[in-house]
Amino acid sequence: MVAEPAAPGPVLVIGAGLVGSSLGMALSRAGVDVTLEDLSRSHALVAASLGAGHVSAVVSDDIAVVVVATPPSNIADVVCRALERFPDAVVTDVGSVKGPIADAVAQRSPHFARYVPSHPMAGSQFTGPMTASADLFRDRTWVITPSAGNTEESLDVVRGLARLTGAVVVELDAELHDEAVAQVSHVPHLMSILTASHLRGVPGENLRLAGQGIRDVTRIAGSDPGLWRQILTTNAVAVREELLEVADDLAYLIRVLDHPDELEAFLRIGQHGAQSLRGKHGQEPKDVVSVTVEIPDEPRALGRLFGDVGDFGFNVEDFELTHDAVREVGYLSISVERPQAEQLRANLVGRGWKAWSHSGA
Amino acid sequence: MVAEPAAPGPVLVIGAGLVGSSLGMALSRAGVDVTLEDLSRSHALVAASLGAGHVSAVVSDDIAVVVVATPPSNIADVVCRALERFPDAVVTDVGSVKGPIADAVAQRSPHFARYVPSHPMAGSQFTGPMTASADLFRDRTWVITPSAGNTEESLDVVRGLARLTGAVVVELDAELHDEAVAQVSHVPHLMSILTASHLRGVPGENLRLAGQGIRDVTRIAGSDPGLWRQILTTNAVAVREELLEVADDLAYLIRVLDHPDELEAFLRIGQHGAQSLRGKHGQEPKDVVSVTVEIPDEPRALGRLFGDVGDFGFNVEDFELTHDAVREVGYLSISVERPQAEQLRANLVGRGWKAWSHSGA
Repeated sequence: MVAEPAAPGPVLVIGAGLVGSSLGMALSRAGVDVTLEDLSRSHALVAASLGAGHVSAVVSDDIAVVVVATPPSNIADVVCRALERFPDAVVTDVGSVKGPIADAVAQRSPHFARYVPSHPMAGSQFTGPMTASADLFRDRTWVITPSAGNTEESLDVVRGLARLTGAVVVELDAELHDEAVAQVSHVPHLMSILTASHLRGVPGENLRLAGQGIRDVTRIAGSDPGLWRQILTTNAVAVREELLEVADDLAYLIRVLDHPDELEAFLRIGQHGAQSLRGKHGQEPKDVVSVTVEIPDEPRALGRLFGDVGDFGFNVEDFELTHDAVREVGYLSISVERPQAEQLRANLVGRGWKAWSHSGA
Repeated sequence: MVAEPAAPGPVLVIGAGLVGSSLGMALSRAGVDVTLEDLSRSHALVAASLGAGHVSAVVSDDIAVVVVATPPSNIADVVCRALERFPDAVVTDVGSVKGPIADAVAQRSPHFARYVPSHPMAGSQFTGPMTASADLFRDRTWVITPSAGNTEESLDVVRGLARLTGAVVVELDAELHDEAVAQVSHVPHLMSILTASHLRGVPGENLRLAGQGIRDVTRIAGSDPGLWRQILTTNAVAVREELLEVADDLAYLIRVLDHPDELEAFLRIGQHGAQSLRGKHGQEPKDVVSVTVEIPDEPRALGRLFGDVGDFGFNVEDFELTHDAVREVGYLSISVERPQAEQLRANLVGRGWKAWSHSGA
């Protein structure tokens, strides 16, 4: 559907942190000429030593694309300066909030039409060039939020750059983007922070009982507070709106803690939300259908069933064993993507199993 | 410090769900004779077919240990019945809340002294025997909360059983246990639920922007609501107390969202909490010390440094690159366990680096 993008001309990456260095590595690997700049010369040198590009005292003026990968609070300034320094270049950025930056550039720079706001949805709890990776963007979503005056040619340059890193390009209105990241990134980050910060009142010996669950929930709370301070204050309006809803939910949860039915209903809403995120990074939730098989009450029946399902070679998304107490019989529900369900059911019936398919909840 | 436990006599596991089946598999692998019982005969047969033990119409009366691994809401009943059925057996359970169960057994059974309450801290977001694993308990914490009347012999039987599965035994007062699991397990679970349930108001297309962070935070929200309903209502008093503190924190967070300094201070408390959980499952937080090395501003310096650190063969827990803007010089902080720090520093100095060690924050 989309033509393979031509490799762009020379790229200047400003900011050799985790994202800038990783981008430099990905583009260099794809054969692009990358120059690195960082206020900290040692950061830029570290990134260069890792294969992210080269550091020069004088940057040539044939730069075709400038990528601003500085901390969020000064992206707008650096973008404006880059538009001035390189009159023929397309300028983009990697900031995780888009509306306020685009507005600031539009107000301050007469060259704002050459600025294409973008946001690769990739990062980690680590910072700095030393944890950079040329594969940071592979299969991740890279959002472009076209702004007033962007030409199709400028947009194509940034789309091509993103695709060279292995990312999947999504185009969105800036305001929608900022609302969406508040919902799927900034609020989850703060929930992780709230969970982790609550440990300040927990005796150290109680931490011995911590299992994998709390470690997963609090992993992203380990991220750089200085970076997140900038992200969150920039998107404070959207984030506050979401957090007020969470506060209402929390008050409700506290009320129903010893009302088993209401509590379970709320837990189910959470379970459903978690399931809606299944599937790979950045992909749409899959349209999954369950195929249910009756398991005769005899030893090895399940082993045979697994063997048969394995033979068919379908990609099983999930499975669940359920039991009918009245008929004393078990069922295995196998979740597969919708186009495969009917074939799976037919194959099972062909091997003598009782099986039927139905849409998942 | 502890003698290797003798393999116990025949074990009866009541409840062939994820934990009961996994326990049966771990004990069978260790050479223990395991009988399985489940209200659902097909569940017990599935577990048996996976190597978790055998299913018999009549359970022999030489059972030495009964492990009750049923859903939390009927553990006390099943424990009382087992104390009656097997007059010479030690009876234990795997329930994740201990005080209320121990109290109920003490009130209802004259044989309560043979009941040793315990809680292996292992599980997953899956349920049922099909996702069982003989390694579920390896390196995990298995809490025993000795109750009034437990003899040292009874306690030793359960300690031995737990160690046979590869778990690490921790003994705690039941009330302290219940407070600790509220803090490190039940509250984090509900924070995951709150994050996931908040997605109910999020347009499906916004989920395209979801990355690994929200997936980690919401993973445990996918767990069985029916099981968690029982766990949470049983421990509602302790959980409510913690959640009220979280609600205060959330209100504070909403207030400071656009006050950068206060916000960053709170993010740092969260980061510190997340760091306190580092290290392997169930181990105490490590006593980690940073060794800082000055990186000369020259190409390949960092590569040489990595090479040297690799040569020394220390187990690096973490590292961070920092930069002194005034002196235009970079530093690498390498975190290692305290006993290794001085040797690492000496080795680095021996190869010509400027290095010193200091306790981490």
